[in-house]
Amino acid sequence: MAVSSFPCIQPVRPPFRPCSLFSAGVCGRFSNKKKINAIVFASSRKLDKDIYLQSKVDTLLDSIKWDDKGLAVAIAQNVDTGAILMQGFVNRDALATTISSRKATFFSRSRAALWTKGETSKNFIDVHDIFVDCDRDSIIYLGKPDGPTCHTGSETCYFTSISDLLEEQEVEENNLALTTLYSLESTISQRESELAGQHGKPSWTKRLLLDENLLCSKIREEADELCRTLEEKEDNSRTASEMADVIYHAMVLLRRKGVKIENVLEVLRKRFSQSGIEEKQSRVTTQN
Amino acid sequence: MAVSSFPCIQPVRPPFRPCSLFSAGVCGRFSNKKKINAIVFASSRKLDKDIYLQSKVDTLLDSIKWDDKGLAVAIAQNVDTGAILMQGFVNRDALATTISSRKATFFSRSRAALWTKGETSKNFIDVHDIFVDCDRDSIIYLGKPDGPTCHTGSETCYFTSISDLLEEQEVEENNLALTTLYSLESTISQRESELAGQHGKPSWTKRLLLDENLLCSKIREEADELCRTLEEKEDNSRTASEMADVIYHAMVLLRRKGVKIENVLEVLRKRFSQSGIEEKQSRVTTQN
Repeated sequence: MAVSSFPCIQPVRPPFRPCSLFSAGVCGRFSNKKKINAIVFASSRKLDKDIYLQSKVDTLLDSIKWDDKGLAVAIAQNVDTGAILMQGFVNRDALATTISSRKATFFSRSRAALWTKGETSKNFIDVHDIFVDCDRDSIIYLGKPDGPTCHTGSETCYFTSISDLLEEQEVEENNLALTTLYSLESTISQRESELAGQHGKPSWTKRLLLDENLLCSKIREEADELCRTLEEKEDNSRTASEMADVIYHAMVLLRRKGVKIENVLEVLRKRFSQSGIEEKQSRVTTQN
Repeated sequence: MAVSSFPCIQPVRPPFRPCSLFSAGVCGRFSNKKKINAIVFASSRKLDKDIYLQSKVDTLLDSIKWDDKGLAVAIAQNVDTGAILMQGFVNRDALATTISSRKATFFSRSRAALWTKGETSKNFIDVHDIFVDCDRDSIIYLGKPDGPTCHTGSETCYFTSISDLLEEQEVEENNLALTTLYSLESTISQRESELAGQHGKPSWTKRLLLDENLLCSKIREEADELCRTLEEKEDNSRTASEMADVIYHAMVLLRRKGVKIENVLEVLRKRFSQSGIEEKQSRVTTQN
Protein backbone atom coordinates (compact mmCIF):
# COMPACT_ATOMS: atom_id res chain seq x y z
CA MET A 1 0.00 0.00 0.00
CA ALA A 2 1.78 3.11 -1.20
CA VAL A 3 -0.12 5.48 1.07
CA SER A 4 0.34 4.65 4.71
CA SER A 5 -3.20 3.85 5.67
CA PHE A 6 -5.64 1.03 5.87
CA PRO A 7 -8.91 2.14 4.37
CA CYS A 8 -10.78 1.27 7.54
CA ILE A 9 -9.83 -0.86 10.46
CA GLN A 10 -12.57 -0.21 12.92
CA PRO A 11 -11.44 -1.01 16.42
CA VAL A 12 -13.50 -3.42 18.47
CA ARG A 13 -13.25 -0.96 21.33
CA PRO A 14 -12.19 2.69 21.12
CA PRO A 15 -9.02 3.68 22.97
CA PHE A 16 -9.27 5.08 26.49
CA ARG A 17 -10.77 8.55 26.55
CA PRO A 18 -11.23 10.28 29.85
CA CYS A 19 -14.82 11.47 30.12
CA SER A 20 -15.64 15.16 30.57
CA LEU A 21 -15.37 14.76 34.30
CA PHE A 22 -11.82 13.52 33.98
CA SER A 23 -10.78 16.24 31.57
CA ALA A 24 -12.19 18.75 34.06
CA GLY A 25 -9.79 17.18 36.54
CA VAL A 26 -12.32 16.46 39.25
CA CYS A 27 -12.04 12.72 39.24
CA GLY A 28 -11.30 11.22 42.63
CA ARG A 29 -11.87 12.65 46.04
CA PHE A 30 -8.72 14.68 46.35
CA SER A 31 -8.92 17.20 43.51
CA ASN A 32 -8.29 20.80 44.41
CA LYS A 33 -10.95 23.29 45.39
CA LYS A 34 -10.44 25.67 42.46
CA LYS A 35 -11.38 22.99 39.96
CA ILE A 36 -14.41 22.00 41.98
CA ASN A 37 -15.45 25.65 42.19
CA ALA A 38 -15.21 25.99 38.42
CA ILE A 39 -17.71 23.19 38.07
CA VAL A 40 -20.19 25.04 40.30
CA PHE A 41 -20.66 27.63 37.57
CA ALA A 42 -21.12 25.09 34.83
CA SER A 43 -24.54 24.33 33.47
CA SER A 44 -26.73 22.21 35.69
CA ARG A 45 -26.93 19.57 32.96
CA LYS A 46 -23.17 19.23 32.84
CA LEU A 47 -23.09 19.23 36.62
CA ASP A 48 -25.60 16.40 36.73
CA LYS A 49 -23.46 14.43 34.31
CA ASP A 50 -20.33 15.14 36.33
CA ILE A 51 -22.02 14.06 39.57
CA TYR A 52 -23.18 10.89 37.82
CA LEU A 53 -19.67 10.15 36.57
CA GLN A 54 -18.10 11.01 39.91
CA SER A 55 -20.40 8.50 41.52
CA LYS A 56 -19.28 5.91 38.96
CA VAL A 57 -15.63 6.58 39.83
CA ASP A 58 -16.44 6.28 43.54
CA THR A 59 -18.28 3.01 42.95
CA LEU A 60 -15.28 1.74 41.01
CA LEU A 61 -12.85 2.79 43.73
CA ASP A 62 -15.10 1.17 46.33
CA SER A 63 -15.02 -2.08 44.37
CA ILE A 64 -11.24 -2.46 44.61
CA LYS A 65 -10.13 -4.88 47.31
CA TRP A 66 -7.64 -2.65 49.10
CA ASP A 67 -5.32 -4.55 51.45
CA ASP A 68 -4.92 -3.87 55.16
CA LYS A 69 -2.76 -0.86 54.30
CA GLY A 70 -5.26 0.46 51.76
CA LEU A 71 -3.11 -0.61 48.83
CA ALA A 72 -3.36 -2.68 45.64
CA VAL A 73 -0.66 -3.76 43.19
CA ALA A 74 -0.32 -1.72 39.98
CA ILE A 75 1.72 -2.91 37.01
CA ALA A 76 2.68 -0.53 34.20
CA GLN A 77 2.82 -2.26 30.82
CA ASN A 78 3.87 -0.88 27.42
CA VAL A 79 0.74 -0.91 25.26
CA ASP A 80 2.73 -1.62 22.09
CA THR A 81 5.40 -4.09 23.13
CA GLY A 82 3.75 -5.67 26.17
CA ALA A 83 6.92 -5.07 28.20
CA ILE A 84 6.30 -4.82 31.93
CA LEU A 85 7.83 -1.44 32.67
CA MET A 86 7.59 -1.31 36.47
CA GLN A 87 5.39 -2.35 39.36
CA GLY A 88 4.28 -0.27 42.28
CA PHE A 89 1.37 0.07 44.66
CA VAL A 90 -1.66 2.33 44.51
CA ASN A 91 -4.03 3.60 47.12
CA ARG A 92 -7.45 5.03 46.36
CA ASP A 93 -6.02 8.48 45.72
CA ALA A 94 -3.27 7.25 43.38
CA LEU A 95 -5.72 5.30 41.23
CA ALA A 96 -8.14 8.26 41.13
CA THR A 97 -5.26 10.52 40.08
CA THR A 98 -4.23 8.14 37.29
CA ILE A 99 -7.81 8.01 36.00
CA SER A 100 -8.03 11.80 35.91
CA SER A 101 -4.51 12.67 34.76
CA ARG A 102 -3.82 9.62 32.56
CA LYS A 103 -0.27 9.64 33.94
CA ALA A 104 0.70 6.45 35.80
CA THR A 105 0.60 7.39 39.49
CA PHE A 106 1.52 5.25 42.47
CA PHE A 107 1.67 5.41 46.24
CA SER A 108 5.24 5.41 47.49
CA ARG A 109 5.33 3.19 50.55
CA SER A 110 8.73 4.53 51.65
CA ARG A 111 7.69 8.19 51.42
CA ALA A 112 4.02 7.58 52.26
CA ALA A 113 3.06 9.92 49.43
CA LEU A 114 1.59 9.91 45.94
CA TRP A 115 4.16 9.62 43.19
CA THR A 116 3.58 10.17 39.52
CA LYS A 117 6.15 8.29 37.47
CA GLY A 118 8.08 10.95 35.55
CA GLU A 119 7.49 13.87 37.93
CA THR A 120 11.27 14.16 38.30
CA SER A 121 12.65 12.51 35.15
CA LYS A 122 9.82 13.75 32.88
CA ASN A 123 9.57 10.19 31.59
CA PHE A 124 5.87 9.86 32.27
CA ILE A 125 3.83 6.81 31.38
CA ASP A 126 0.76 7.91 29.42
CA VAL A 127 -2.01 5.56 30.41
CA HIS A 128 -4.28 4.40 27.58
CA ASP A 129 -6.44 2.08 29.63
CA ILE A 130 -6.56 0.54 33.06
CA PHE A 131 -7.54 -3.04 33.81
CA VAL A 132 -8.44 -4.70 37.09
CA ASP A 133 -8.09 -8.42 37.70
CA CYS A 134 -10.77 -10.95 38.62
CA ASP A 135 -10.06 -10.47 42.33
CA ARG A 136 -10.08 -6.67 42.02
CA ASP A 137 -6.80 -6.34 43.91
CA SER A 138 -4.36 -6.03 41.01
CA ILE A 139 -4.29 -3.37 38.33
CA ILE A 140 -2.62 -2.92 34.93
CA TYR A 141 -1.78 0.55 33.66
CA LEU A 142 -1.61 -0.11 29.91
CA GLY A 143 0.31 2.82 28.51
CA LYS A 144 3.13 4.35 26.57
CA PRO A 145 6.31 5.51 28.29
CA ASP A 146 7.85 8.84 27.30
CA GLY A 147 11.33 7.40 27.84
CA PRO A 148 13.18 4.83 29.95
CA THR A 149 11.07 3.84 32.94
CA CYS A 150 13.74 2.71 35.39
CA HIS A 151 15.67 5.21 37.53
CA THR A 152 18.83 3.44 36.29
CA GLY A 153 18.06 4.59 32.73
CA SER A 154 16.99 1.12 31.68
CA GLU A 155 13.92 0.75 29.50
CA THR A 156 12.21 -1.30 32.21
CA CYS A 157 13.00 -2.12 35.83
CA TYR A 158 13.32 -5.85 35.05
CA PHE A 159 16.84 -6.36 33.78
CA THR A 160 18.21 -9.01 36.09
CA SER A 161 17.67 -12.60 35.03
CA ILE A 162 17.71 -15.24 37.73
CA SER A 163 18.92 -17.84 35.24
CA ASP A 164 21.90 -15.61 34.50
CA LEU A 165 22.58 -15.31 38.23
CA LEU A 166 22.39 -19.05 38.81
CA GLU A 167 23.89 -20.49 35.68
CA GLU A 168 27.61 -20.74 35.61
CA GLN A 169 27.96 -17.88 33.20
CA GLU A 170 28.73 -14.22 33.56
CA VAL A 171 25.76 -12.08 34.40
CA GLU A 172 24.89 -9.87 31.47
CA GLU A 173 24.19 -6.31 32.37
CA ASN A 174 20.86 -4.88 31.40
CA ASN A 175 19.45 -8.19 30.22
CA LEU A 176 15.83 -7.13 29.88
CA ALA A 177 12.90 -9.52 30.35
CA LEU A 178 12.10 -9.81 26.65
CA THR A 179 9.22 -11.68 25.10
CA THR A 180 9.71 -13.61 21.85
CA LEU A 181 9.49 -10.84 19.25
CA TYR A 182 11.86 -8.60 21.21
CA SER A 183 14.28 -11.44 21.95
CA LEU A 184 14.47 -11.96 18.20
CA GLU A 185 14.98 -8.25 17.62
CA SER A 186 17.71 -8.23 20.25
CA THR A 187 19.42 -11.25 18.63
CA ILE A 188 19.38 -9.62 15.21
CA SER A 189 20.79 -6.44 16.71
CA GLN A 190 23.54 -8.45 18.40
CA ARG A 191 24.47 -10.06 15.08
CA GLU A 192 24.74 -6.63 13.53
CA SER A 193 27.03 -5.41 16.29
CA GLU A 194 29.24 -8.49 15.77
CA LEU A 195 29.62 -7.54 12.11
CA ALA A 196 31.27 -4.26 13.03
CA GLY A 197 33.81 -5.93 15.31
CA GLN A 198 34.64 -8.76 12.88
CA HIS A 199 34.03 -11.25 15.66
CA GLY A 200 31.42 -13.84 16.45
CA LYS A 201 30.34 -16.88 14.52
CA PRO A 202 28.97 -17.02 11.00
CA SER A 203 25.20 -16.81 10.83
CA TRP A 204 22.35 -16.54 8.36
CA THR A 205 21.28 -13.25 9.96
CA LYS A 206 24.70 -11.78 9.28
CA ARG A 207 24.57 -12.91 5.66
CA LEU A 208 21.21 -11.21 5.26
CA LEU A 209 22.44 -8.05 6.95
CA LEU A 210 25.40 -7.91 4.57
CA ASP A 211 23.53 -8.71 1.36
CA GLU A 212 20.64 -6.41 0.51
CA ASN A 213 19.72 -8.36 -2.63
CA LEU A 214 19.59 -11.66 -0.76
CA LEU A 215 17.53 -10.10 2.04
CA CYS A 216 14.95 -8.55 -0.29
CA SER A 217 14.66 -11.65 -2.43
CA LYS A 218 14.05 -13.72 0.73
CA ILE A 219 11.32 -11.33 1.98
CA ARG A 220 9.51 -11.48 -1.38
CA GLU A 221 9.93 -15.26 -1.49
CA GLU A 222 8.62 -15.76 2.06
CA ALA A 223 5.60 -13.51 1.45
CA ASP A 224 4.83 -15.54 -1.66
CA GLU A 225 5.14 -18.80 0.26
CA LEU A 226 2.84 -17.48 2.99
CA CYS A 227 0.23 -16.67 0.35
CA ARG A 228 0.62 -20.09 -1.21
CA THR A 229 -0.32 -21.75 2.08
CA LEU A 230 -3.74 -20.13 1.62
CA GLU A 231 -4.00 -20.57 -2.15
CA GLU A 232 -2.90 -24.18 -2.06
CA LYS A 233 -4.81 -25.00 1.12
CA GLU A 234 -1.74 -26.12 3.04
CA ASP A 235 -2.07 -27.01 6.70
CA ASN A 236 -2.03 -24.46 9.51
CA SER A 237 1.37 -25.39 10.86
CA ARG A 238 2.83 -24.53 7.45
CA THR A 239 1.10 -21.13 7.58
CA ALA A 240 2.52 -20.43 11.04
CA SER A 241 5.95 -21.46 9.85
CA GLU A 242 5.85 -19.28 6.73
CA MET A 243 4.54 -16.31 8.73
CA ALA A 244 7.47 -16.81 11.12
CA ASP A 245 9.79 -16.67 8.09
CA VAL A 246 8.16 -13.45 6.89
CA ILE A 247 8.46 -11.80 10.30
CA TYR A 248 12.07 -12.87 10.82
CA HIS A 249 13.32 -11.72 7.41
CA ALA A 250 11.33 -8.48 7.56
CA MET A 251 12.79 -7.81 11.01
CA VAL A 252 16.28 -8.14 9.58
CA LEU A 253 15.30 -5.44 7.08
CA LEU A 254 14.00 -3.28 9.94
CA ARG A 255 17.39 -3.66 11.63
CA ARG A 256 19.17 -2.68 8.38
CA LYS A 257 17.03 0.47 8.30
CA GLY A 258 17.35 1.14 12.05
CA VAL A 259 13.61 0.80 12.64
CA LYS A 260 12.38 -0.83 15.84
CA ILE A 261 9.42 -3.19 15.84
CA GLU A 262 7.93 -0.93 18.55
CA ASN A 263 7.77 1.90 15.97
CA VAL A 264 5.85 -0.40 13.63
CA LEU A 265 3.38 -1.35 16.36
CA GLU A 266 2.92 2.32 17.19
CA VAL A 267 1.99 2.94 13.55
CA LEU A 268 -0.53 0.11 13.72
CA ARG A 269 -2.02 1.37 16.98
CA LYS A 270 -2.37 4.92 15.73
CA ARG A 271 -4.03 3.70 12.57
CA PHE A 272 -6.72 1.82 14.29
CA SER A 273 -7.32 4.43 16.93
CA GLN A 274 -8.02 6.90 14.10
CA SER A 275 -10.52 4.60 12.54
CA GLY A 276 -13.52 6.21 14.21
CA ILE A 277 -13.09 9.12 11.82
CA GLU A 278 -12.21 6.86 8.92
CA GLU A 279 -15.22 4.77 9.66
CA LYS A 280 -17.47 7.83 9.33
CA GLN A 281 -15.82 8.67 6.03
CA SER A 282 -16.44 5.13 4.89
CA ARG A 283 -20.17 5.61 5.35
CA VAL A 284 -20.10 8.31 2.70
CA THR A 285 -17.71 6.75 0.23
CA THR A 286 -18.58 3.09 0.98
CA GLN A 287 -15.25 2.30 -0.64
CA ASN A 288 -14.19 0.33 2.41
CA MET B 1 11.81 -20.65 2.88
CA ALA B 2 10.19 -23.95 1.99
CA VAL B 3 11.62 -25.83 4.94
CA SER B 4 10.58 -24.37 8.25
CA SER B 5 13.92 -23.35 9.64
CA PHE B 6 16.36 -20.51 9.70
CA PRO B 7 19.84 -21.83 9.01
CA CYS B 8 21.13 -20.39 12.25
CA ILE B 9 19.69 -17.81 14.52
CA GLN B 10 21.96 -17.96 17.51
CA PRO B 11 20.25 -16.57 20.57
CA VAL B 12 21.97 -13.81 22.48
CA ARG B 13 21.20 -15.74 25.63
CA PRO B 14 20.17 -19.38 25.86
CA PRO B 15 16.72 -20.11 27.29
CA PHE B 16 16.33 -20.85 31.00
CA ARG B 17 17.76 -24.24 31.89
CA PRO B 18 17.65 -25.36 35.48
CA CYS B 19 21.14 -26.35 36.56
CA SER B 20 21.89 -29.87 37.78
CA LEU B 21 20.99 -28.85 41.29
CA PHE B 22 17.54 -27.82 40.16
CA SER B 23 16.93 -30.92 38.12
CA ALA B 24 17.92 -32.93 41.20
CA GLY B 25 15.15 -31.04 42.94
CA VAL B 26 17.17 -29.75 45.85
CA CYS B 27 16.86 -26.09 45.09
CA GLY B 28 15.53 -24.07 48.01
CA ARG B 29 15.49 -24.89 51.66
CA PHE B 30 12.34 -26.93 51.74
CA SER B 31 13.07 -29.91 49.51
CA ASN B 32 12.25 -33.28 50.92
CA LYS B 33 14.65 -35.50 52.77
CA LYS B 34 14.64 -38.36 50.27
CA LYS B 35 16.02 -36.19 47.51
CA ILE B 36 18.66 -34.75 49.77
CA ASN B 37 19.66 -38.27 50.86
CA ALA B 38 20.03 -39.28 47.23
CA ILE B 39 22.56 -36.55 46.76
CA VAL B 40 24.64 -37.81 49.69
CA PHE B 41 25.57 -40.86 47.63
CA ALA B 42 26.50 -38.87 44.59
CA SER B 43 30.10 -38.29 43.69
CA SER B 44 31.90 -35.76 45.81
CA ARG B 45 32.56 -33.66 42.71
CA LYS B 46 28.86 -33.43 41.93
CA LEU B 47 28.16 -32.75 45.59
CA ASP B 48 30.62 -29.89 45.62
CA LYS B 49 28.94 -28.44 42.57
CA ASP B 50 25.51 -28.85 44.13
CA ILE B 51 26.63 -27.18 47.36
CA TYR B 52 28.09 -24.34 45.32
CA LEU B 53 24.84 -23.92 43.38
CA GLN B 54 22.72 -24.20 46.52
CA SER B 55 24.75 -21.42 48.02
CA LYS B 56 24.08 -19.34 44.90
CA VAL B 57 20.33 -19.91 45.25
CA ASP B 58 20.51 -18.97 48.92
CA THR B 59 22.44 -15.81 48.08
CA LEU B 60 19.84 -14.96 45.48
CA LEU B 61 16.96 -15.56 47.89
CA ASP B 62 18.76 -13.48 50.52
CA SER B 63 19.06 -10.62 48.03
CA ILE B 64 15.29 -10.27 47.56
CA LYS B 65 13.78 -7.45 49.58
CA TRP B 66 10.98 -9.37 51.28
CA ASP B 67 8.33 -7.13 52.84
CA ASP B 68 7.31 -7.16 56.51
CA LYS B 69 5.28 -10.31 55.81
CA GLY B 70 8.16 -12.02 54.00
CA LEU B 71 6.55 -11.51 50.59
CA ALA B 72 7.37 -10.02 47.21
CA VAL B 73 5.13 -9.42 44.19
CA ALA B 74 5.30 -11.98 41.36
CA ILE B 75 3.80 -11.36 37.93
CA ALA B 76 3.30 -14.20 35.45
CA GLN B 77 3.77 -13.09 31.84
CA ASN B 78 3.28 -15.06 28.61
CA VAL B 79 6.73 -15.36 27.04
CA ASP B 80 5.33 -15.23 23.51
CA THR B 81 2.55 -12.65 23.64
CA GLY B 82 3.69 -10.54 26.60
CA ALA B 83 0.21 -10.84 28.13
CA ILE B 84 0.18 -10.43 31.89
CA LEU B 85 -1.51 -13.65 32.96
CA MET B 86 -1.92 -13.12 36.69
CA GLN B 87 -0.23 -11.57 39.69
CA GLY B 88 0.35 -13.09 43.07
CA PHE B 89 2.82 -12.97 45.92
CA VAL B 90 5.80 -15.17 46.68
CA ASN B 91 7.68 -15.94 49.84
CA ARG B 92 11.18 -17.43 49.91
CA ASP B 93 9.83 -20.96 49.65
CA ALA B 94 7.52 -20.18 46.70
CA LEU B 95 10.33 -18.59 44.69
CA ALA B 96 12.69 -21.48 45.50
CA THR B 97 10.01 -23.94 44.41
CA THR B 98 9.49 -22.10 41.12
CA ILE B 99 13.23 -22.13 40.45
CA SER B 100 13.43 -25.87 41.04
CA SER B 101 10.14 -26.99 39.49
CA ARG B 102 9.86 -24.36 36.71
CA LYS B 103 6.13 -24.21 37.47
CA ALA B 104 4.89 -20.78 38.55
CA THR B 105 4.36 -21.05 42.31
CA PHE B 106 2.97 -18.45 44.67
CA PHE B 107 2.19 -17.96 48.33
CA SER B 108 -1.54 -17.79 48.95
CA ARG B 109 -2.12 -15.07 51.54
CA SER B 110 -5.67 -16.24 52.26
CA ARG B 111 -4.65 -19.88 52.84
CA ALA B 112 -1.16 -19.08 54.16
CA ALA B 113 0.23 -21.86 51.98
CA LEU B 114 2.27 -22.44 48.83
CA TRP B 115 0.19 -22.67 45.70
CA THR B 116 1.38 -23.84 42.31
CA LYS B 117 -0.80 -22.38 39.58
CA GLY B 118 -2.42 -25.36 37.86
CA GLU B 119 -2.26 -27.80 40.77
CA THR B 120 -6.06 -28.07 40.55
CA SER B 121 -6.87 -27.02 36.96
CA LYS B 122 -3.72 -28.59 35.45
CA ASN B 123 -3.20 -25.31 33.62
CA PHE B 124 0.34 -24.83 34.85
CA ILE B 125 2.55 -21.94 33.79
CA ASP B 126 5.88 -23.32 32.60
CA VAL B 127 8.49 -20.79 33.63
CA HIS B 128 11.23 -20.10 31.06
CA ASP B 129 13.03 -17.42 33.00
CA ILE B 130 12.60 -15.31 36.10
CA PHE B 131 13.48 -11.64 36.37
CA VAL B 132 13.83 -9.42 39.41
CA ASP B 133 13.44 -5.67 39.29
CA CYS B 134 15.96 -2.97 40.19
CA ASP B 135 14.64 -2.81 43.77
CA ARG B 136 14.64 -6.59 44.13
CA ASP B 137 11.11 -6.65 45.46
CA SER B 138 9.18 -7.50 42.30
CA ILE B 139 9.51 -10.59 40.14
CA ILE B 140 8.43 -11.64 36.65
CA TYR B 141 7.78 -15.28 35.86
CA LEU B 142 8.25 -15.29 32.09
CA GLY B 143 6.56 -18.45 30.91
CA LYS B 144 4.09 -20.34 28.84
CA PRO B 145 0.64 -21.23 30.16
CA ASP B 146 -0.75 -24.70 29.52
CA GLY B 147 -4.26 -23.24 29.22
CA PRO B 148 -6.40 -20.37 30.49
CA THR B 149 -4.83 -18.85 33.57
CA CYS B 150 -7.86 -17.35 35.30
CA HIS B 151 -10.15 -19.46 37.49
CA THR B 152 -13.02 -17.98 35.45
CA GLY B 153 -11.67 -19.72 32.33
CA SER B 154 -10.40 -16.47 30.88
CA GLU B 155 -6.99 -16.43 29.21
CA THR B 156 -5.73 -13.92 31.79
CA CYS B 157 -7.12 -12.49 35.03
CA TYR B 158 -7.26 -8.98 33.58
CA PHE B 159 -10.49 -8.75 31.63
CA THR B 160 -12.19 -5.75 33.20
CA SER B 161 -11.42 -2.39 31.64
CA ILE B 162 -11.86 0.69 33.80
CA SER B 163 -12.59 2.82 30.74
CA ASP B 164 -15.45 0.44 29.89
CA LEU B 165 -16.75 0.78 33.43
CA LEU B 166 -16.59 4.57 33.37
CA GLU B 167 -17.52 5.42 29.81
CA GLU B 168 -21.16 5.60 29.08
CA GLN B 169 -21.17 2.37 27.18
CA GLU B 170 -22.03 -1.16 28.01
CA VAL B 171 -19.27 -3.11 29.70
CA GLU B 172 -17.97 -5.78 27.39
CA GLU B 173 -17.50 -9.12 29.00
CA ASN B 174 -14.06 -10.65 28.88
CA ASN B 175 -12.42 -7.58 27.42
CA LEU B 176 -8.81 -8.63 27.90
CA ALA B 177 -5.97 -6.17 28.43
CA LEU B 178 -4.56 -6.52 24.93
CA THR B 179 -1.43 -4.90 23.58
CA THR B 180 -1.32 -3.58 20.01
CA LEU B 181 -0.70 -6.74 18.01
CA TYR B 182 -3.41 -8.64 19.89
CA SER B 183 -5.87 -5.76 19.70
CA LEU B 184 -5.40 -5.89 15.95
CA GLU B 185 -5.86 -9.66 15.94
CA SER B 186 -9.02 -9.27 18.03
CA THR B 187 -10.36 -6.59 15.64
CA ILE B 188 -9.78 -8.80 12.61
CA SER B 189 -11.47 -11.69 14.38
CA GLN B 190 -14.44 -9.44 15.20
CA ARG B 191 -14.73 -8.44 11.53
CA GLU B 192 -14.81 -12.11 10.57
CA SER B 193 -17.58 -12.84 13.06
CA GLU B 194 -19.58 -9.93 11.64
CA LEU B 195 -19.35 -11.52 8.19
CA ALA B 196 -21.20 -14.60 9.37
CA GLY B 197 -24.05 -12.59 10.84
CA GLN B 198 -24.41 -10.24 7.87
CA HIS B 199 -24.24 -7.29 10.24
CA GLY B 200 -21.75 -4.55 11.02
CA LYS B 201 -20.31 -1.87 8.77
CA PRO B 202 -18.36 -2.37 5.57
CA SER B 203 -14.62 -2.56 6.10
CA TRP B 204 -11.39 -3.22 4.25
CA THR B 205 -10.69 -6.16 6.55
CA LYS B 206 -13.98 -7.77 5.56
CA ARG B 207 -13.20 -7.29 1.88
CA LEU B 208 -9.85 -8.99 2.36
CA LEU B 209 -11.42 -11.83 4.34
CA LEU B 210 -13.91 -12.43 1.55
CA ASP B 211 -11.51 -12.16 -1.39
CA GLU B 212 -8.54 -14.54 -1.32
CA ASN B 213 -7.07 -13.15 -4.54
CA LEU B 214 -7.21 -9.58 -3.28
CA LEU B 215 -5.68 -10.60 0.06
CA CYS B 216 -2.77 -12.49 -1.49
CA SER B 217 -2.07 -9.80 -4.06
CA LYS B 218 -1.97 -7.21 -1.23
CA ILE B 219 0.45 -9.31 0.84
CA ARG B 220 2.82 -9.71 -2.12
CA GLU B 221 2.49 -6.01 -2.95
CA GLU B 222 3.18 -4.88 0.63
CA ALA B 223 6.22 -7.16 0.94
CA ASP B 224 7.54 -5.69 -2.30
CA GLU B 225 6.95 -2.15 -1.05
CA LEU B 226 8.72 -2.94 2.22
CA CYS B 227 11.74 -4.16 0.24
CA ARG B 228 11.70 -1.06 -1.93
CA THR B 229 12.06 1.16 1.14
CA LEU B 230 15.49 -0.47 1.54
CA GLU B 231 16.40 -0.68 -2.12
CA GLU B 232 15.36 2.87 -2.86
CA LYS B 233 16.68 4.26 0.42
CA GLU B 234 13.36 5.63 1.57
CA ASP B 235 13.07 7.16 5.02
CA ASN B 236 12.51 5.14 8.18
CA SER B 237 8.94 6.24 8.73
CA ARG B 238 8.08 4.78 5.34
CA THR B 239 9.72 1.49 6.33
CA ALA B 240 7.71 1.37 9.58
CA SER B 241 4.54 2.12 7.65
CA GLU B 242 5.15 -0.57 5.02
CA MET B 243 6.05 -3.11 7.69
CA ALA B 244 2.75 -2.26 9.43
CA ASP B 245 0.99 -2.95 6.11
CA VAL B 246 2.76 -6.31 5.79
CA ILE B 247 1.84 -7.34 9.34
CA TYR B 248 -1.78 -6.26 9.04
CA HIS B 249 -2.45 -8.00 5.72
CA ALA B 250 -0.55 -11.12 6.76
CA MET B 251 -2.60 -11.22 9.97
CA VAL B 252 -5.79 -11.19 7.92
CA LEU B 253 -4.42 -14.27 6.15
CA LEU B 254 -3.68 -15.88 9.52
CA ARG B 255 -7.31 -15.25 10.50
CA ARG B 256 -8.50 -16.82 7.23
CA LYS B 257 -6.44 -19.89 8.06
CA GLY B 258 -7.40 -19.92 11.75
CA VAL B 259 -3.80 -19.42 12.90
CA LYS B 260 -3.12 -17.25 15.95
CA ILE B 261 -0.17 -14.87 16.03
CA GLU B 262 0.80 -16.60 19.31
CA ASN B 263 1.35 -19.83 17.33
CA VAL B 264 3.68 -17.96 14.99
CA LEU B 265 5.66 -16.51 17.89
CA GLU B 266 5.92 -19.97 19.41
CA VAL B 267 7.45 -21.19 16.15
CA LEU B 268 9.95 -18.34 16.24
CA ARG B 269 10.84 -19.00 19.88
CA LYS B 270 11.36 -22.69 19.34
CA ARG B 271 13.56 -22.00 16.34
CA PHE B 272 15.95 -19.80 18.16
CA SER B 273 16.04 -21.91 21.28
CA GLN B 274 17.22 -24.81 19.11
CA SER B 275 20.01 -22.79 17.65
CA GLY B 276 22.63 -23.96 20.14
CA ILE B 277 22.72 -27.26 18.26
CA GLU B 278 22.44 -25.56 14.90
CA GLU B 279 25.23 -23.25 15.83
CA LYS B 280 27.52 -26.22 16.48
CA GLN B 281 26.59 -27.67 13.10
CA SER B 282 27.40 -24.35 11.50
CA ARG B 283 30.98 -24.59 12.74
CA VAL B 284 31.41 -27.70 10.64
CA THR B 285 29.49 -26.71 7.55
CA THR B 286 30.15 -22.95 7.75
CA GLN B 287 27.17 -22.65 5.44
CA ASN B 288 25.48 -20.23 7.84
